[in-house]
Amino acid sequence: FRASVCMRWRQLPWSLRRGRLERLLPSAGRPLPPPPAVRWASARADRAADEATYRLLSPLEHVLLRPGMYVGATGRTNEHAWVVDGGTSGGMAWRPVSYCPALLKIFDEVLVNALDNVSRDPAGTTHIDVSIGAAGLPPTGLPEGALRVHNAGRGIPVAKATAAVHGAGVAGTWLPQLVLGELFTGSNFDDGAGRIVGGRHGFGAKLANIFSERFEVETADAAAGVRYSQVWRRNMSVVEPPELLPLPHSAASDYTRVTLLPDYARLLGEGGAQGGGGQGGLAEGGGAEGGGGLDADTVALLCRRVHEAAACAHPTACVSLNGVALEVDGLRGLMRRYPASDAALAAGGGSALVRLSPRWQLGVAAAPGGGGAHVSFVNGVATARGGTHMDHIERQLLRGLAARLAAKGEEPLPPAALRPHLLLFVDGRVEDPEFDSQAKERLTSPADR
Amino acid sequence: FRASVCMRWRQLPWSLRRGRLERLLPSAGRPLPPPPAVRWASARADRAADEATYRLLSPLEHVLLRPGMYVGATGRTNEHAWVVDGGTSGGMAWRPVSYCPALLKIFDEVLVNALDNVSRDPAGTTHIDVSIGAAGLPPTGLPEGALRVHNAGRGIPVAKATAAVHGAGVAGTWLPQLVLGELFTGSNFDDGAGRIVGGRHGFGAKLANIFSERFEVETADAAAGVRYSQVWRRNMSVVEPPELLPLPHSAASDYTRVTLLPDYARLLGEGGAQGGGGQGGLAEGGGAEGGGGLDADTVALLCRRVHEAAACAHPTACVSLNGVALEVDGLRGLMRRYPASDAALAAGGGSALVRLSPRWQLGVAAAPGGGGAHVSFVNGVATARGGTHMDHIERQLLRGLAARLAAKGEEPLPPAALRPHLLLFVDGRVEDPEFDSQAKERLTSPADR
Repeated sequence: FRASVCMRWRQLPWSLRRGRLERLLPSAGRPLPPPPAVRWASARADRAADEATYRLLSPLEHVLLRPGMYVGATGRTNEHAWVVDGGTSGGMAWRPVSYCPALLKIFDEVLVNALDNVSRDPAGTTHIDVSIGAAGLPPTGLPEGALRVHNAGRGIPVAKATAAVHGAGVAGTWLPQLVLGELFTGSNFDDGAGRIVGGRHGFGAKLANIFSERFEVETADAAAGVRYSQVWRRNMSVVEPPELLPLPHSAASDYTRVTLLPDYARLLGEGGAQGGGGQGGLAEGGGAEGGGGLDADTVALLCRRVHEAAACAHPTACVSLNGVALEVDGLRGLMRRYPASDAALAAGGGSALVRLSPRWQLGVAAAPGGGGAHVSFVNGVATARGGTHMDHIERQLLRGLAARLAAKGEEPLPPAALRPHLLLFVDGRVEDPEFDSQAKERLTSPADR
Repeated sequence: FRASVCMRWRQLPWSLRRGRLERLLPSAGRPLPPPPAVRWASARADRAADEATYRLLSPLEHVLLRPGMYVGATGRTNEHAWVVDGGTSGGMAWRPVSYCPALLKIFDEVLVNALDNVSRDPAGTTHIDVSIGAAGLPPTGLPEGALRVHNAGRGIPVAKATAAVHGAGVAGTWLPQLVLGELFTGSNFDDGAGRIVGGRHGFGAKLANIFSERFEVETADAAAGVRYSQVWRRNMSVVEPPELLPLPHSAASDYTRVTLLPDYARLLGEGGAQGGGGQGGLAEGGGAEGGGGLDADTVALLCRRVHEAAACAHPTACVSLNGVALEVDGLRGLMRRYPASDAALAAGGGSALVRLSPRWQLGVAAAPGGGGAHVSFVNGVATARGGTHMDHIERQLLRGLAARLAAKGEEPLPPAALRPHLLLFVDGRVEDPEFDSQAKERLTSPADR
């Protein structure tokens, strides 16, 4: 019996003893959380103050006070991620980034809405055009820091809500205003209709609106012969009246265009709810902060998402970024953007793509040094933390690989030991998907659906 | 150069080729998602139908229609988990379980409220008594399937909300009714006060109420000399008037007792929103389903959570389960409940516990065969998916271990390679923690807070 390196690893922790462990924690590097004295909340003598701690918030106030529950963390997060540094061209790179997850999320909410339109109206949604107002990208005419997603195809009908169909409380309100500016509204609440869209909760576009200084929609409804545009400002608290213009017949095709100027001060935690003692009031500032949040890391992450959208929309819709069409032919095209490890190149290849079913594609590549474990999409939503379907596919793949090795007479290996050496790509469609949160990073639908 | 087992693993994926991959996916085992024909939503000719797809929900309807966003998945999930099969005694076992994550979550919301009371009123919260109405546990007098959490100590003040303090819309409503029966209410919205509680979003108890057939609170307010009790039924849609009784002076100590009969039909997906085409209406059935959801797996998971609560409440409050005091003296006591691997026992030990700061404790043990990677708590909330603090502590520990090995002249190993062999325990307190969702499985607060 040969004591292999792996066996030695297994024996490691057994030798741990109390006392020695402290010395293993290096004092260099990032310090552990500082040890402040525990401040227990003192039992309040003042009963009135006690009663006053109980508060009732409006849903809008709640979203602003507890963004983590809706769009992920505000402030900056530091981690490694796949990014596209080349803007409209170039490959994926795995590198450390500093960014705001909530900012990425609100952009994603608008982008996923456009991708959903590919399912809703595949004939009409011929193209999706994304514009990012950032210095390093081709100019777009957008102000610095602004984001725009334009898609062709049927949008929200330009019509007023009626008491009979939509309820007395909202009768007379234009449907686009309701769907983009009121929480708990949407067209995705009818499960069982076999729809494979990413919108589920009725929060998406509203969240982008709430975390923006300015949010603007323009939609052309050819059937109604009208173009509708409307502006919200200051975290959706100011609703300007919509403007309706007749649609000239020569330009009579449907489209929807959303333009937002994110509330960078609030998102980056430099003001607003973060610094203001959590009162959750609406920001008083009006746009002076500008595009401070669109640094190179954030732009590189946004560009990655647009490339991914191009892969998911292929071949139905063409996706462009700042006027440049992105040529990403589906999951295969996306995989080509990832670096192959040197060793894989030397071995003459190293990736494979299979269609598991009409709705599921699986790609496998050798993991480039230290890179992320998987890239997966469910109905165009990037499920960064995987979920039920990822687990299901992964388990079968690893078991299959291990069995194949065993069949070749190799030493038996646990399937899990193979996992770190693979980079998996999954693109799937699920009817009425269930996610673990509004951030939708993990799918929780049963694997057999 | 010796081609070790590990090196062979690294070379594995390079030999993957298209075509061979299909054969690696075994047809045996659980089948992959079936390949139904993709049904694109047809472009609707009927414009009225199109307009009617847009809907506005009340927050309560939204919670019932999209439980995943609030309490996790309904229906059954199959996975491996640590459980306590012995009820009020015995150790942890790692085994496959079939359970409903949402059911576990609503119990947890009520339990975490009681744990938060340990921080709010450490002098008064001397004990927390949990009762589970299940056949395999000591009898409690509760009906089959019912759950109860009773805690000593200051509760919600029995007083009416006032227009001046709480707003005109809720003036005159009893505070307990507001806090337990209205969404977006609570006492945890004041950040910056240095409070280290698990309640954050103002949803917890309300979610337990919404997913229950019957939800009952009884709270004694000694200062006001009154005992308040109230019942909600049918997913919080029926609110019975509260009953107030004078509190006899001989029994004048504060307590809060919440008793719920979960809506098993809805939670297990056997009716309600799951089967009803997603209309999200309120269940018409009234309790006939009984305790069908409290099978052995679910009870074993609930018992684990009560043991964990006992560890987190130690030494301030004593936690009992169905009348039996649980003797779990903090994180150390909890660690003792986990099995040591045979090899670790043979090596004469295998676990260590250090206090990193007044607020943070770290335990390390040899991973028992295939068991979960970590057991971590933030303010008593079980963060099953770790988060920023877990990452931070883990990184330092692994780097320290790897450096120590290198210092002993061993072959250099990447720190990540050590991880699978450790089972980590972390118990920490964070002021105003941020989580990635209402399920609070992952902490997102910056690691330096």
